[in-house]
Order: sequence, then C-alpha cells, then structure tokens
Amino acid sequence: MRRWNGWGDESVNVELPESAIEFLKNELGPGNKPQDISLDKALSNVPASRLPEHQLINTDPLERLRHAVGQSFGDWNAIRSGTIPTYPDGVAFPLNEQEVRELLQFAKKIDAHIVPYGGGTSVVGHLAALKGDKPTITVDVSRMNKLLDLNEEGCLAQFQAGIKGPDLEAALQAKGFTLGHFPQSFEYSTLGGWIVTRSAGQQSLKYGRIEQLFVGGEMETPVGSLEISNLPASAAGPNLREFVLGSEGRLGIVTKATVKISPLPEMEQFYSAFFPTPEQGMAAIRKIAQQGIPLSMMRLSLPEETISTLTMAGESKVLTLLDKWLKMNGVNEQKCMLVYGVTGSKKSVKSSLYQAQSIIKKYKGVLVGTKPGQQWVKNRFRSPYLRNSLWQEGYAVDTLETATTWNRVPETIQSIESALREGLQDINENVFAYTHLSHIYPHGSSIYTTYLFRIGDDPDETKRRWEKLKKAASEAIVKNGGTISHQHGVGTDHRPYLENEKTKLGMEMIRSLCHTLDPEQRMNNDKLI
Amino acid sequence: MRRWNGWGDESVNVELPESAIEFLKNELGPGNKPQDISLDKALSNVPASRLPEHQLINTDPLERLRHAVGQSFGDWNAIRSGTIPTYPDGVAFPLNEQEVRELLQFAKKIDAHIVPYGGGTSVVGHLAALKGDKPTITVDVSRMNKLLDLNEEGCLAQFQAGIKGPDLEAALQAKGFTLGHFPQSFEYSTLGGWIVTRSAGQQSLKYGRIEQLFVGGEMETPVGSLEISNLPASAAGPNLREFVLGSEGRLGIVTKATVKISPLPEMEQFYSAFFPTPEQGMAAIRKIAQQGIPLSMMRLSLPEETISTLTMAGESKVLTLLDKWLKMNGVNEQKCMLVYGVTGSKKSVKSSLYQAQSIIKKYKGVLVGTKPGQQWVKNRFRSPYLRNSLWQEGYAVDTLETATTWNRVPETIQSIESALREGLQDINENVFAYTHLSHIYPHGSSIYTTYLFRIGDDPDETKRRWEKLKKAASEAIVKNGGTISHQHGVGTDHRPYLENEKTKLGMEMIRSLCHTLDPEQRMNNDKLI
Repeated sequence: MRRWNGWGDESVNVELPESAIEFLKNELGPGNKPQDISLDKALSNVPASRLPEHQLINTDPLERLRHAVGQSFGDWNAIRSGTIPTYPDGVAFPLNEQEVRELLQFAKKIDAHIVPYGGGTSVVGHLAALKGDKPTITVDVSRMNKLLDLNEEGCLAQFQAGIKGPDLEAALQAKGFTLGHFPQSFEYSTLGGWIVTRSAGQQSLKYGRIEQLFVGGEMETPVGSLEISNLPASAAGPNLREFVLGSEGRLGIVTKATVKISPLPEMEQFYSAFFPTPEQGMAAIRKIAQQGIPLSMMRLSLPEETISTLTMAGESKVLTLLDKWLKMNGVNEQKCMLVYGVTGSKKSVKSSLYQAQSIIKKYKGVLVGTKPGQQWVKNRFRSPYLRNSLWQEGYAVDTLETATTWNRVPETIQSIESALREGLQDINENVFAYTHLSHIYPHGSSIYTTYLFRIGDDPDETKRRWEKLKKAASEAIVKNGGTISHQHGVGTDHRPYLENEKTKLGMEMIRSLCHTLDPEQRMNNDKLI
Repeated sequence: MRRWNGWGDESVNVELPESAIEFLKNELGPGNKPQDISLDKALSNVPASRLPEHQLINTDPLERLRHAVGQSFGDWNAIRSGTIPTYPDGVAFPLNEQEVRELLQFAKKIDAHIVPYGGGTSVVGHLAALKGDKPTITVDVSRMNKLLDLNEEGCLAQFQAGIKGPDLEAALQAKGFTLGHFPQSFEYSTLGGWIVTRSAGQQSLKYGRIEQLFVGGEMETPVGSLEISNLPASAAGPNLREFVLGSEGRLGIVTKATVKISPLPEMEQFYSAFFPTPEQGMAAIRKIAQQGIPLSMMRLSLPEETISTLTMAGESKVLTLLDKWLKMNGVNEQKCMLVYGVTGSKKSVKSSLYQAQSIIKKYKGVLVGTKPGQQWVKNRFRSPYLRNSLWQEGYAVDTLETATTWNRVPETIQSIESALREGLQDINENVFAYTHLSHIYPHGSSIYTTYLFRIGDDPDETKRRWEKLKKAASEAIVKNGGTISHQHGVGTDHRPYLENEKTKLGMEMIRSLCHTLDPEQRMNNDKLI
C-alpha cells in the first residue's frame, strides 16, 4: 500500500547509515522531531463534499485525502501536519476517454473545477483543489493504463495516458522494446504526467526528453477532443504536440499517447570517474556532449555532493581505500564524481566508451570502473524514500533544478547554493546544499541542487523555512537567466517566476491557448499561469 | 546577378545531357517551347505604388517585381508569363530590429499589410502581396546579415536572422564551427526563413532540423517584441520557440536568432550502395535509424529516381559497367540507390561506417564506394537550376514532399505517384514521377517526389496542369494521413489542406496565437491559415 503521507510503498524503508546521521548533526545540528498527525486525525479534517452524486465520482474522505496533495515540500509538510488548505470534493477514476468527456460535461453542468491527476508525484504543486465556492473534481487517470497498439516495425506504441512507468516498461520489454524514460518518480508517475510537465528521464542523453518521445495522441478539452496525428516530422505550421507538452492540465486531460520506442539494447553499463576539480569535470562532459559521443547518461556530482554521496553510502573502509587511490592520482578535496552510462550494441558501446574515456582522461579524470555506477543504478529511484527517513530524524530535504547555457553554469550553481546556505541566517540555522549536473546538452546543462535543513519547532515554522529557501533559490535562478524548471514543471510553486522566463507577451500567448480550449476556466486553474 | 525570373545566378547554367532530353522525349513527348516575356515587358506590368513615401521603403518597379513571387511552380509560371496577380507596393530593407519596428508602426499608421521576405526561395507561396485595397509592404531582411555573438565554449552563435546560408557557414567555418543546416535552397535561403518554415537540411540526421538548432531569439510583432531566451531545455510550460517555428510570417518578423553550432568535423565522407528492391532498401535505412547509428545523411532513391539520376548523369559507359557489376550481385531493374554520409571524428566515422554497412549488407545492398556519393555532394544545391534548363526545353518540373510513419510509407508513395502519373490523362499527357526518401527517422520517413510534365500551349494551360497535379498529389497525401509538408511549409499552396493535419480545434489554437500577436491581421495574411 502506498504511503498516504510520504513517498513510496509503506513496506519500503531506506535506512540512513549512522555515518549519515552523524554527518547531518555536524552540518545542521541535532534534528527536530516532527509533529506528524495520524491518519484518523487527517481524515477527520476532510470537510464534507459539495458534489452532487455521480456514478464515476468517489467522495470517500480517504480518497480525497490521498488526492489532496502531491509531493512538493509544501504538500509534504501540509499532509504530515494536518494543514492541507483545500481538498477535492470528489475523485473520479475514468476508464477511457468517453468517461473523461462525461466528467468534463458534468463539471460544466454543475460549475465545478477539474484537477487532472496522474501519479500524484508532482513536486511543484500541481494537484491542489481550487479555493473558493466552486467544488473541485480530481480526475485520477490511473485506471487508463492499457497498451493500445504496438507497431514493432515502426517503433511506435500507443498507450492510455494513465499508465505508470513500471507497467509501461513491462509491456514494452515483454516485446523486446523500451521507452527509455526513467525520471526519479518512475515508480508512480504516468505517461500523461510526463507529457504535460515536460519530464526528462535519467537517460535522456540517449532516449531524449519526453518532448522527443511523444509523437501524437488525444487530449479531452472542455471544447472537444484534440487529436494529434502521428507524424515523424512536419513543417506545416506550429506543432500542436508542443501545445500539449507542458500544458499542466490547463488545456485538458491527455487520454492517449503514442510514443517512440527503441529495441532493447544489447548491453548497458555504467561507469565512474573522478575529476580533480569541478572545472575539469564540466569541461569533460561538455566536450563529450558537443562531440555527440553517444553515451546514455552522465551525472557529474560537484564536490559537496560527491562527499555526501560517498558518506551516505556508509562503507568507510572502501572509501578510505578509494580516497588513497584518488590522491595518488592527483584527485583531492575538490573531487567530482562522474557516473556515465553506455547503452547499445556491443560494437557501439565499445566505440562510445573509448571516445568518452579518452576525453575524461584528457581532463585528468581518474577512471574507477563500474562500482559507483552500479551503485547509482541500484539506487536510481530510491532517493525520494530518503525524505521519509530524514524526516523521522528531524531533517527536511528538498531539491530544485534549472538549466542554463554553459557560460552561466558555474555562477548559477554558486548563486543558488549561496542563496540556500545563507537563507536561514536570520535564525542561525545552517542549510546544507549540494549539486549535480545530470542532463548534459551541447550548449548547456541542467543544475540539480539538493538542500537539507532542520525542520522547525512547529509546522508553520517548517513551512516558513522552506518558503524562504525556495524563494531565495528561485530568485537566484531567475537573476542568472536560468529556466525556472528543467524537469519538474511550474505548478503553483514556480508560477510567480514564469513571466521572467516567458515575458509578458509570451504569457499572453499561453493565456490565449487556455482561453481557446478552456473558455470557462475550469481546468487546473492557479497552476502554471 | 540573381535571375529575375528563375533560380540562381544568371551566369550559372546547368546543361542537360543529350541522354536526358532523349529520355524525356520518350517519356513525355517533345517539349513545348515556353512563351516567356522580357524583363522590360514584366516591368511595364508593375502597377503604380499606393504607398506614401517612407525613407526605408523602395517603390522602384524592379524591386517590386523581384519581390512579387517566390519559387513555387505557380510563382514561376506567373513571372515567366507576365501573369503575376499582385505586386508589393514597396520593398523595405531594414538593417536592424529598430527599423523593423518602425516599418510595423508605419504599416499600422497607413493600414498596410506586411509580407516578410527572407531569401525569396519559398516553393509553396509565402510571398505574394495581398489582394484588395490595402497596400502591401514587403520587408526584405537580407541586409540583417551579421554574426552578433559567438560563444565558442558553449557552441552557440547569434545572428541577425536575414543572413543567407553561405554567409552564415562562412562566418562559422572561419572559427572552426558549422551549423550543419543545408537545405537545397541553401545558396539563397535565410536563417529566419528556415525558422519560420521549419526547414530540414540534407544532413538533419546528424545536425537535426532547424527546430533542433534554433535556441532563442527575437521576433518583432505588431504588439511588441517577443524575446525567447537561450535555454538548453525547459519544463516551464509550452515552449515559445515552437510558436515561432513554422509561423510563416503570421506572427511577426524574426530579427535575431541564436543557434546551436558544432565543431567542424574531423572528416566527412559520402558512400553509396544499391539494393535489389525498394523493400530491402527501406528495411535497411529504417534499421540504421532505429539503431541510432550516427550517420549524417541517408537518401534512398526508388527505382525510377535511381534510373533517372543515372541517366541524367549521362556517363553511359560507366553506367553499363555499373549495371553489369550490380547484376552479377543480384541487383536488377528494381535497383534503389542509397547515398549515405558519415561525419565526425575518425574513430566515430569508422565505427558508424562499419555498423551501417553491416546492416546494408544484411539487406543485400551492394556497396559501390564513394563515387555516386561524391557526385551527390557536388550537385547537392544544383537541382533547382535544372528547372531553368528543363523549362527552355519545354518541360515543367516540380517537387512535393510529405512524411509519414513507416507502416504507411509504401502505400503513400504509390498513392502520390499514381495521382501524378494519372493526373493529366484527360488530355492524354504523360507525367513522369519519381521519389526518394531523404529524412529518415526511427518511426518514419520523409517522401520526396519529383514530377515532370510538358508545359502547355499557353501559360494558363500550364497553370491548369500544375494545379491539377498539385491537387491530386495533395489529396493523396491527406488521404494517407501524411503531413502536408515535411520541409517546405504551408504558404498558400498547402493552406487548403492544413485543417486535415491540425483538426478544427488545432486551427483555432493557431488562430488564437495570430489574434494575440497580430490583432489587426496585418502580417502575411492568406498564408499558412
């Protein structure tokens, strides 16, 4: 059973090693125990539904509680502490596009809002019910999870858009294919959710972002169905796919999607290397991307993340040996760990590896084989579970991300990290922040920063700390001209900053699309724009 | 000096070999000599300008004649025969975005239409002045041709958008870079033109379409400047770049564009192979694309194009030898020529070549070395010149293109070719049509068909023949679910078919963008939508 107030399945606990807790005590001071409420208490907070009866809509308090929030830090703090501001009045689980249409018509008839709900994994506030007098119907598409068509020759698969990552991969892998889209939320997030938030998977270097994988599909909107045909490319005017991508439920509900699939690779391996400095590591990954060497992923941890990753792993003996060896090779305190993957035929993997490693060595990177890479693969979807464990110890963890051109990457990282580290100076609290680059483009990189702080004495204080840090970091991103989101989307958390990225005129263009497809403003209002 | 009524520089004539003329006589009958008018006559047809004076606007009849049409077959027939329906009232050559803004303000003040003009190479009718009482100002951006910024480390270059292909490549190659965008119109077409028509270059397999190369920029619109910042990727809502791409002058005039550039490759080679049948050729290129083998281009000519390419080349002795050799290897009448390119480091070229050739051989392709590939490179921008030569001989030539998913490629080709071949049966005229696939995607392919027919006894009859053929082929494309354009755009020629691709609701979305940025409908009306 999935946790009602945290990440993942209730049976899965990722324990923190002693060394990690010691490390955090040193950096942040002893943790503040959280004041979580019980499920019974949480259920008692759910107000009466304002919806008339409808056969597709469930008004049970447990479903409404489970769908009231996503996984943004604000959501997390609210559900844990019993301070959720709004609840959906009911949750529907349509089986197909006819039922989605029926729900949209019902919403119109009773003048209700609609919140589309995929896997509930949003970390930027996409899922809250609307404030005000009108009721909210949350439309959970998780039962729309079928493989509808597989075109093996043409490498295309059509799915109902509510299918979750593992089910989608299982259906494809059984036939010898993969989508290759592995965001950290993979276990729960859905194909439709990936599309409307412009998701990027961990191996986007090979497979592309969801923008490159989504070929066509159907979206139910308040004014009718929008069909987007499957074309490999088109020069016929603006691309409608691009209106659906990133639409965050504002234009409608994606019901079907056709995606590009790839034959399962002959082989896949993950390797690791350590660079003496961030500058050398960044130069190497930039070169690899610019030369188009076909790796399947690269992730460069900057010094603080490198140290904290190794510390969290908890194997001190191995670490001491590794450190010794790295020092002998000129890699010291400023070490940066690179994990990189090769995926494909034996021949292409060999060639890619040779080319990539030549560049790594040119920039004084020390190759350390496959161990840390294997460790990364093993844990690739486990980081979100650490939030549960850290919370129990009295620490809050959140992540944020941006992307920018190479010339701005170093100062943007520094600016974000400084904003976070100094963000709670007013109350003499430390913030521990570290960064990696994990989506590498020829002309820029994503920047992914994790930050930890002590939770407050009460939920309001915890919220205040998070909001202060989030604001400071977002302003640092905007000031440096980075995108307000490389992979998480906008939601409510990034909404105040969107105009900086899109400009006033750009916002008007987006708004005009919203008005055209949702003239009565029924769809996921307050999110995105 | 550029031809006023045809393709290319007046000094360049691409002669047809005798064998080609013989071939056409056999297929179509003897050519009908055209009834072209003189430049003096053409100038006398240009009506008086309706524009008040403006320092940026030239109302000279020669400039207005030169900017009255593009290179669509309808344009060609009209300018040759003196039947151009509309002329711009003046042509402006702004130097920068301030002057573009000034022109847009002037158009508003005097209630005029604007037609943006890049290289004048449109083959689908983007450039005609508007019918009716309002005057038209054509804004030729060719003087906006500067390199503004080169970020070598980050592989980004910013240009004024009126720069032409050769100037852009010269500026980049002098610094060791290339954009790698080589459409057939390369000699004259502009960066801004590529962007607003979603152009695809001949080596898009390596470098991507212009959609993948265009990072950010500025567009002057009737309601203000739209700025799109340079980001390597963003999940923050709909992507504004995608509103500009394919906008065909309806939303504004692109003044600056930042593009991804690549280091000049260590080496580049073009090879060739012949397959016994189209089925084997298509299976091989599909496999190569699906396995992601990093070639820089593939072009598979189907049997008719293979034969006509070899015949047009005119070296009959070499051909006889080639034919003998191919026959010995099981390649006969149904032979399909593949030209493929490898571009990159020595190491990657070697690896790509090995992988690609393994697949070619698996599908019974016969490798024939580099000769036909070199021939293709030599002639890669020369095909448009053949239109001049063929016209003199009394033959009309036009091309059309689409793209579709692999399962539909064979029947779409057959459907287009049949529509063309049978298109003039009512007057007992033959049409010669042949096809190649030149933009190969894992999930589909472009289809590029060339067709030749005899020009009519008078310009109206020539126009009637072309319109009949164009309509028949466009309907065949639409019936088969292909895009109405893979690389040429929409303009006026494809406009009647756009709704089939975009749906009614999609058209409303595009229209809402036009209304937002151009509320008075001043920008390139009648084109695209």
